[in-house]
Amino acid sequence: LYSTEVRTCTLIPGDGIGPEISAAVQKIFKAANVPIEWESVDVTPVKQPDGTFGIPQTAIDSVNRNKVGLKGPLMTPVGKGHRSLNLALRKEFSLYANVRPCRSLEGYKTLYDNVDVITIRENTEGEYSGIEHEIVDGVVQSIKLITEEASRRVAEFAFKYTKENNRRKLTAVHKANIMRMSDGLFLRCCREMAEKYPDVKFEEKYLDTVCLNMVQDPSLYDVLVMPNLYGDILSDMCAGLVGGLGLTPSGNIGINGALFESVHGTAPDIAGQDKANPTALLLSAVMMLKYMGLNDHAQKIEHACYDTIKEAKYLTGDLGGKAKCSEFTDAICGKLS
Amino acid sequence: LYSTEVRTCTLIPGDGIGPEISAAVQKIFKAANVPIEWESVDVTPVKQPDGTFGIPQTAIDSVNRNKVGLKGPLMTPVGKGHRSLNLALRKEFSLYANVRPCRSLEGYKTLYDNVDVITIRENTEGEYSGIEHEIVDGVVQSIKLITEEASRRVAEFAFKYTKENNRRKLTAVHKANIMRMSDGLFLRCCREMAEKYPDVKFEEKYLDTVCLNMVQDPSLYDVLVMPNLYGDILSDMCAGLVGGLGLTPSGNIGINGALFESVHGTAPDIAGQDKANPTALLLSAVMMLKYMGLNDHAQKIEHACYDTIKEAKYLTGDLGGKAKCSEFTDAICGKLS
Ligand SMILES: CC(C)[C@H](C(=O)O)[C@@H](O)C(=O)O
Ligand SMILES: CC(C)[C@H](C(=O)O)[C@@H](O)C(=O)O
Repeated sequence: LYSTEVRTCTLIPGDGIGPEISAAVQKIFKAANVPIEWESVDVTPVKQPDGTFGIPQTAIDSVNRNKVGLKGPLMTPVGKGHRSLNLALRKEFSLYANVRPCRSLEGYKTLYDNVDVITIRENTEGEYSGIEHEIVDGVVQSIKLITEEASRRVAEFAFKYTKENNRRKLTAVHKANIMRMSDGLFLRCCREMAEKYPDVKFEEKYLDTVCLNMVQDPSLYDVLVMPNLYGDILSDMCAGLVGGLGLTPSGNIGINGALFESVHGTAPDIAGQDKANPTALLLSAVMMLKYMGLNDHAQKIEHACYDTIKEAKYLTGDLGGKAKCSEFTDAICGKLS
Repeated sequence: LYSTEVRTCTLIPGDGIGPEISAAVQKIFKAANVPIEWESVDVTPVKQPDGTFGIPQTAIDSVNRNKVGLKGPLMTPVGKGHRSLNLALRKEFSLYANVRPCRSLEGYKTLYDNVDVITIRENTEGEYSGIEHEIVDGVVQSIKLITEEASRRVAEFAFKYTKENNRRKLTAVHKANIMRMSDGLFLRCCREMAEKYPDVKFEEKYLDTVCLNMVQDPSLYDVLVMPNLYGDILSDMCAGLVGGLGLTPSGNIGINGALFESVHGTAPDIAGQDKANPTALLLSAVMMLKYMGLNDHAQKIEHACYDTIKEAKYLTGDLGGKAKCSEFTDAICGKLS
């Protein structure tokens, strides 16, 4: 029934609670007999021959070889020279589409029922270009860079995703009333793609309108595609609707591979105490399995996770329970064997 | 008790439902004996001597003379040449701070209770600079412009506002982890101002974090100050928490005057039918009164409006009621005489 060809995936356990939630995922994968082997690597920046700091070559090679990876939370290096390591990874592997599904979990009540939205964020340019200048003293410009290539690529991904997953609608989110040329270009790429996917229902909405409507009635939206910064904002907001970053998975899809990651922090205050909730990383790993075509394993694990939360017997502290990470993990494993 | 020196205010009734909600505000002001006279002007763009279209000079002169104005919703002119008229007005009068209080209304239930946040948005630059280029075919850049002058001005306004209104905290919202120089400059101006206002509690938060936390627990925030686009997004989101743009007021504060406006649309579908809800414009007019120092009149009208909504006898259609705009208006007037 299940695919049994063993494949290797890169694992970047990360910092803080990263190692323990990574171990939880590995344990659950073993219990579900997922036919993958993990190759664990460290991405802590090391001094390069040219004197700058960068991701170790072994880590880069591992991802390039395996084409799929799972990543725990990383500490943001302190100090001016360092940009976020998360961003460096997105850049290094041209991970152009960031996919973040936000679904209400049955066992965890928030103000919202039945949220089920997916944000697809352009992940390589826009306000994240990193290009900034001080023109004269006290006058700074940051460049928002929008290219046809990157816009079309993420638009195509979004339409394909919406279609293949039988979702009901794709919304392009923009401020082309203000940034007529840049968001205008992004929007044009979406419109052109819409013509190639006539069976996908497509609409365009202003970012501010989406934010307003989303908090009133998330069922108005389904899949959403947008430039980089808007995705940063909207994905976090949607995560908030269903309980926060501890519960929502994320996938960074590239041309040559993909990196799945929990986007919550490293939670240094509870690190090493067996208290962390591995759900976000586990659901990211489930996304990875779907990406690899291991749908049956993915669904089995996903349901075991959902059911464990729904039963509410072994919930971690962030969900109002008293269970340890290992108890929650074992409860999931128990449903898999 | 009340100030009786009569002052003149400019009124821009606007399009669609604009005239009827403006008439409602005028009626309520009369019932409350507010010592102001209205000077009604039209801002529909007219052909200028140089062939371009622009705001009529009479309207500009009126605002410059009176220094305070109230504005209903304006239609966005269709066609590529026109930028938003709302933006043109903000620019014409250097309205540098956009203040939008979002408060839960007792009579109107949403998912959130006791929301009471105020967004203060830099209103003249940032992503709204209007500077865009196509570098080469398919590569566009939009300039986000941040200046020390504008940042300091809005920061100073925000600290003053927080202090004078006895609010408990000011949060600067930014993405200086990504836009280090531009948002960094904005943040530096806020920090420097914080030193001049040691009695105002000050904090800094990432925009994405604020969005996530706001939908989970709006009581985490109080007054927030931020660059232009972030304010556009966050103010709409906060409006969504309390019922939408039909209920939330807005003030654009400039160096030489201020323009208060409802930020909802023109609602052409119900225009002229006595169905519109004048609350957003009325509460904007109340903000105007406070700005003018007419606090007693402001509070009287504000309470009459809140009470009418709370009693829920005469609610307009958008609030689930059946009352006409004029019935709702009369109910408020009834509490004022
Ligand atoms: C950590 C930070 C640089 C990052 C971002 O802004 O993209 C984060 O907020 C995210 O959404 O992954
Ligand atoms: C109408 C539009 C140009 C405007 C903006 O983007 O600022 C609106 O959304 C607002 O918030 O006043």
